[in-house]
Formats: sequence, C-alpha cells, structure tokens
Amino acid sequence: MVAEIISIGTEILMGNITNTNAVYFARKCAALGIDCYYQDVVGDNEERMTQMIRTALDRSDLILLSGGLGPTEDDLTKEVVCKVMGEPLVEDPHTKARIQSYMESYLKSNPDSAITANNWKQALVPENGTVLDNDNGTAPGLIIEKNGKIAVLLPGPPIEMKPLFEEYVIPYLRGRQEDVLYSHMIKICGIGESAVETEILDLIDAQTNPTLATYAKTGEVHLRVTAKAKNEEEALRLMAPVEEELKKRFGNHIYTMEEEVTLERAVVDMMKERNLYLTTAESCTGGAVASRIVNVPGASEVLGQGIVTYSNEAKQRYLSVREETLANYGAVSAETAREMAEGGCRNTGTEACIAITGIAGPGGGTPEKPVGLVYMGCCVNGKTIVREYQFRGSRTKIREQAVVKALTLLRSCILDAE
Amino acid sequence: MVAEIISIGTEILMGNITNTNAVYFARKCAALGIDCYYQDVVGDNEERMTQMIRTALDRSDLILLSGGLGPTEDDLTKEVVCKVMGEPLVEDPHTKARIQSYMESYLKSNPDSAITANNWKQALVPENGTVLDNDNGTAPGLIIEKNGKIAVLLPGPPIEMKPLFEEYVIPYLRGRQEDVLYSHMIKICGIGESAVETEILDLIDAQTNPTLATYAKTGEVHLRVTAKAKNEEEALRLMAPVEEELKKRFGNHIYTMEEEVTLERAVVDMMKERNLYLTTAESCTGGAVASRIVNVPGASEVLGQGIVTYSNEAKQRYLSVREETLANYGAVSAETAREMAEGGCRNTGTEACIAITGIAGPGGGTPEKPVGLVYMGCCVNGKTIVREYQFRGSRTKIREQAVVKALTLLRSCILDAE
Repeated sequence: MVAEIISIGTEILMGNITNTNAVYFARKCAALGIDCYYQDVVGDNEERMTQMIRTALDRSDLILLSGGLGPTEDDLTKEVVCKVMGEPLVEDPHTKARIQSYMESYLKSNPDSAITANNWKQALVPENGTVLDNDNGTAPGLIIEKNGKIAVLLPGPPIEMKPLFEEYVIPYLRGRQEDVLYSHMIKICGIGESAVETEILDLIDAQTNPTLATYAKTGEVHLRVTAKAKNEEEALRLMAPVEEELKKRFGNHIYTMEEEVTLERAVVDMMKERNLYLTTAESCTGGAVASRIVNVPGASEVLGQGIVTYSNEAKQRYLSVREETLANYGAVSAETAREMAEGGCRNTGTEACIAITGIAGPGGGTPEKPVGLVYMGCCVNGKTIVREYQFRGSRTKIREQAVVKALTLLRSCILDAE
Repeated sequence: MVAEIISIGTEILMGNITNTNAVYFARKCAALGIDCYYQDVVGDNEERMTQMIRTALDRSDLILLSGGLGPTEDDLTKEVVCKVMGEPLVEDPHTKARIQSYMESYLKSNPDSAITANNWKQALVPENGTVLDNDNGTAPGLIIEKNGKIAVLLPGPPIEMKPLFEEYVIPYLRGRQEDVLYSHMIKICGIGESAVETEILDLIDAQTNPTLATYAKTGEVHLRVTAKAKNEEEALRLMAPVEEELKKRFGNHIYTMEEEVTLERAVVDMMKERNLYLTTAESCTGGAVASRIVNVPGASEVLGQGIVTYSNEAKQRYLSVREETLANYGAVSAETAREMAEGGCRNTGTEACIAITGIAGPGGGTPEKPVGLVYMGCCVNGKTIVREYQFRGSRTKIREQAVVKALTLLRSCILDAE
C-alpha cells in the first residue's frame, strides 16, 4: 500500500505554521510499513485542491488529508474529496447530535458566542464512509473506501488530529497490512558522509530486504537499516547479518545502534560506566560543548563544571595556562589547548577535560591562523591528546562542527584510555 | 509570479526530519510578494521526481527546490531538473577548484577520510545556469532560466541553503518583480504572543498596505510589517506610521527593527555601548547562554568568562555561593541565584553577571520545586534583580525557554541600570 500525505491550508503555504502534521503522518506510515512517495500542501482553493486530490488518488492507494474540515466557507476538503470520489454527502444525525452537545458546552464558557448555521455543515458525511467521533472538536474524522482507494480525512489541529489517528486510523490501517516495517538506526562519528557511502556501496547495491539508507548530520552519519517482515522477530533476524557487517566495517566509529541515543548521551553513558568526571574548557565554542552534555538527563553525574575561558586572562586564572605559552604560541595553538586540558583536570580534580580554542570568525583570522582553525586538547586519566582542525563556513557552522568534533575526540580518548 | 516549493528527500517522507525548508521558503515568498500555491515533497527516486518537477514547471513559474544535491548516487535533483528542462550538465572548473579546496581543508581535520570520486559529481552544473558559491558545503546553488520558467536548486541543510538564499536568490527574485515588497521585522521580547496579538488587533483589522503579521518564537514575538510599493523609498514611507505606532505600544520590549539582529546580538551591542563586561553563571542552562552570546561576532569585547557550575561544589568554588545558602534554601532557589550573580561579578571583577539555576527535568522535581522551576539572578553595576520562572515542556524546551528569558532579563537589567 502506497500512501500520500496531503495537508490543506493557506496558512502553511504562507509560512505561518510549520507542517508538523506531515511529519507525524510520515512517521506513522513508516512505522506501519506503509510506503509514502509524496507529500503535498495545497491552499483552500477548490480548483487546485480538486486537481491535487485527483492526482494523488491516481498515483497512491491511500491519501491522508488534514485540514479544511472546519465550518467556514473556506473549508472544502470533505466536499472536494467526495466530489472526486463520486460519493454523496448526507446529514448524519449522530454527528449532528454530537455537534449540538459540543457547542452547548462551549457556549457555557463563551456566553457571547452563538451556534451559527455554518456549524451544521460539519454534520454532513459521505454516504458510505466511516465517521470517526472527535472528542476535541466539532469536525469528525472520515474514512472513505471506493474503487480500491482509501481517503482518510482528519481535522488540521494536531490536538484533534492525533487522537483520531491513534484511536481509529492506526487500527484500521493495521488491519489492512500484511507486513510490518522495523528499523534500526546505526550512528557513526569520526568519518565523513562520502567515506561512509563509499564503504557501504556494495551493501547498498545488493540491498533488497533489509534496506540501508544514509543520513548526514553535522559531523555524524546515520545509517538506517529497515526490514519488512511478518513480525518483529523475523525483522530482527533479517537485520542481524547486515548490522554485524556494519559493525565489522565501522567498529568503534559506531557510537550507538539506538534511535534515541545522541552523541552526547553516548559520551555521558561511557563516562558514567567508567566513573569519569569531566570538566569542559571552551574558548570558541563558548559553552556549547557543556550545553550539549547538560542536555542529557542525569549529566550531573559526569559534569561538575564547565569553564568558558574566552579571554586570555580567564585561561590563566581558571586553567593555569602559562603566560609564556600564550605569549609565545598564542591563544589558538596546540600548546595552549594542551595546557587548557591539563590545567582543567588539575585545577578541578576531574579525570577528564576537553579543551577547545580556535578562531570562529568572521574576523580574527591571519594567513598563518585562518578562520576555522581550531585546536583541541583532551586529557583523560593523565594522558593528553592534542588535535588540529580546519573547519569551513560561517561562525555558526564552524562552532557547530567544533562541538561535534570535541565530543568525538572526547569519546575516542575515553576509548583509548582503556 | 507563482512559486512552488519542492523539497527532495526520502528522510522527509520517512518522517526523520521536519520540512523546515518549506516554511522558510514560504515565508520568504510571502515577504517578496510571490504567490505560492503548492508545496511538494518527493523522495530520491528518479521517475517520481521527474513527474513531480514536470507538473510543477507546468503549473508554476518558479520552482524552489532543496535537497538532493549531495555527492551520493541517491542525489538526483540537479540531474532530473536539467533533464526535464533540457539543459546539459557540464563540469565547472571554478566549482571543481572550490570543492578541491573545501575537501583539502576537510581532510586536514579528518585525516582518515579521502576525496572519493563521487565528490566530483558536484562540480557538474547546467550549461546556461547561474552557479551560486556555497561557503558552507560542497554543493553549489544553481539557477536555471528556460522557456519562461525558473528553477532554483539549493542544498538541503538549512545552514547551507539559507545563506545562499539570502545572498543570491533574494536579490535575483527582487530583480524580476515589478511591485516590490519590502518588510521590516520588529522583534519583541518579554511579552507573550497572545498579549502582543491582542495589543495590535485593531491594526491587523485595519491593515491594507502595509500589512502586519506575527510570528511566535521561543520567548520572542516577531512582527513583520510589509509594504508593496514601486521602490524602497515609497515602501519606507508607507511603513513609517505603523512602525511609529508599534514603537509607542511596545516601547522597550522592542529589541530590534532589523531582520538579522538576534536577541543575543542586541544584548552584546548594548553592553559594548555601555562598556559593560559580562560573566555568565549557569547551572541548568549548562553553558547555552554563554554559547548564544559567543555566537555574536566580537563577543570577546563583552564576555570574559562563562562558568557552568553544575555541582554545588562548583557553585561554591567559582561563585562563592555560601554553604549555608545551599543547605538552607537549596541549589534551585532565589537566594542561590542571587549569590551566584553577585559572586560572579565579585570574583571576576566584571560589571554584569547573569545567573541561572533550575530544574530542567525530567527527574529532580518535587511538589514544592517542580520540573521547570528556574531562578535567575542578574547583577548589573552592583544592583541585583532575582526572578522566578515556571517553564513547561521537555528538558530541551525548558532549557531553551530559560536561555531566552536569561537574555531578556539581562537586557532589561542593563536598561534599568541607566
């Protein structure tokens, strides 16, 4: 079964709201093993909506529509879908009674309002459709099946749409599926996207079930392994050999095989297991490394303090970087990075310190030390590693890359320290 | 001119990422006065992409595409658009040299990687197209004009797409519009969205030219004033009375009237003007406030150090918070926030310190001190203000709100200190 997600509303076309319904439907379809080839957005315009729905019903088996079920003249979704599918609209006494009771309780808290004639428009339903009772609004959800095609119509507000989808649409769709999709996310750091792609070209070329897809993130590459199967057990059995092969090829570069684990979470977990306590010593990243670590619940078990030593004076005061080092090599140098990391451990009594000093730009670069040059020092259990990086892009981009590299370096130093 | 927004990527269809590029393009089109009737998403599939692009070029004058310009086999956008438009692809020596240099500097920081053959695919450009140099990645932006239709191709990552759009695509599109839309963004902090909307209801109801639109951001509200005019001068004249009225109504809550000025930039500029030097003292925000400030170029003129005092011990060591205070009132208390701010100034000799301590969750809450409770202390020129906030949502959401509130509080304390 191939689904198509159609969001109706001029407010999406104008950029006033983000189309989060589409992401929601997309995730649910992926989890149900329903392929989805298209997402569309169209405004409250009869002609364009008609054309869009006709095209969608032509190329997809299932259309998931949200929006345009309200009581106003602009709300046309139900009318257009029924016209295209050749389905008459009839008044549904059950829905009419629900609207009446919903409106009466609404009027109690909003005595200045009134039930207007257009409210009754929402009691019209497709003659042979299924009506899904909406407890959070007046527009019911609707399912229409005709000529081998299915249209699911839901109200636009997520607070109305999601409960209807969870309660009625998921069980309905599950009943029509034979196979289920399961997937694992394998997250890799320390190797670039094209290198990862090159490394798995043969696997990608040979893939049928499971399939393999790559997603590039700043400083990371994620690989999604997806299997189609009768049940979870079979899916896991299908995925196992591919995952073993990926583990062989990427080894320690894989920092997690769990969807919800982030790089910072993986690092925090490693430190917890090893009873390591961390200090961050940041210059150009300005606290962003500490902030990423603090984003992990329970980070207090591994992080006592982070120090943003943006000035030379602060580097001396908090990290005991020597004045001669700053004078001879500069604040952005391998020597300073080393002293920051070692001073960070020594002054705080922590086992680990990651130190970052660099030129984030746009000013401050020289031919010898261009914008994007960043030195990092990482000290774990008395052993210090210093690395030089040259990043590209805007100040924000350089800083983002530096943060991920710092977490990656910290992770690899913890692994090396074993 | 009618535009259509096409986002390419299986990761959007699978629901792995939210299609924020579409919102961005939609807003920019609205601001430029370009109508937009459709948004589409299609995966990395040649046949479906071809069909989609053909349909879009048929019904719209301008297609704005993002995604699918990477170096891998999956990346097909350029190839498909050129095929549909009948435009040959040729190697561009300029782009090739840029990729070479980008990759070389990348290899410096990633010595285990290699330039692989697929990287050179990105040097192929449409023969009669315009190449937009991408400073944040290897895929250039492209503009193709043919048979009265325009295709704009941009890389998918927002950090690459947005600078290309701002620098090249906006001026290009402006040049093709007769009546021009000009807009100013009035950015407001310290008042909620519904309060702002209520305050301007009469202006919204009366609007014709200029128009007024509100956009809610975490902790901020942005108002866009847009005028349609023959030239910039006329547009500015039309906008002036509305802007004056907004200034009257929102006063000091307006932190900027410039599109590209962020809240942190406004705060840094204020501190520069007043020769104030800042220390940040963060607990639950974990360095995120310092990081936001460091994101402003030239932040070193106002920030000497930031201290992330995540443990009680660190609060005592770096900020001289008294042991009794922590014992009697707890780390998350008005008293601790005050001592953090005052200790931050005293120990570092800076004029200003913003201190944040709170419970970001998901654990750690109690009936008396629930998750989301945050205290902030802000000391400017010896005067300290302490505030209590109760935020809602996930750990990330609570921390994000706290960061914006901290910048807002710091700004208002600087204004009060005058």
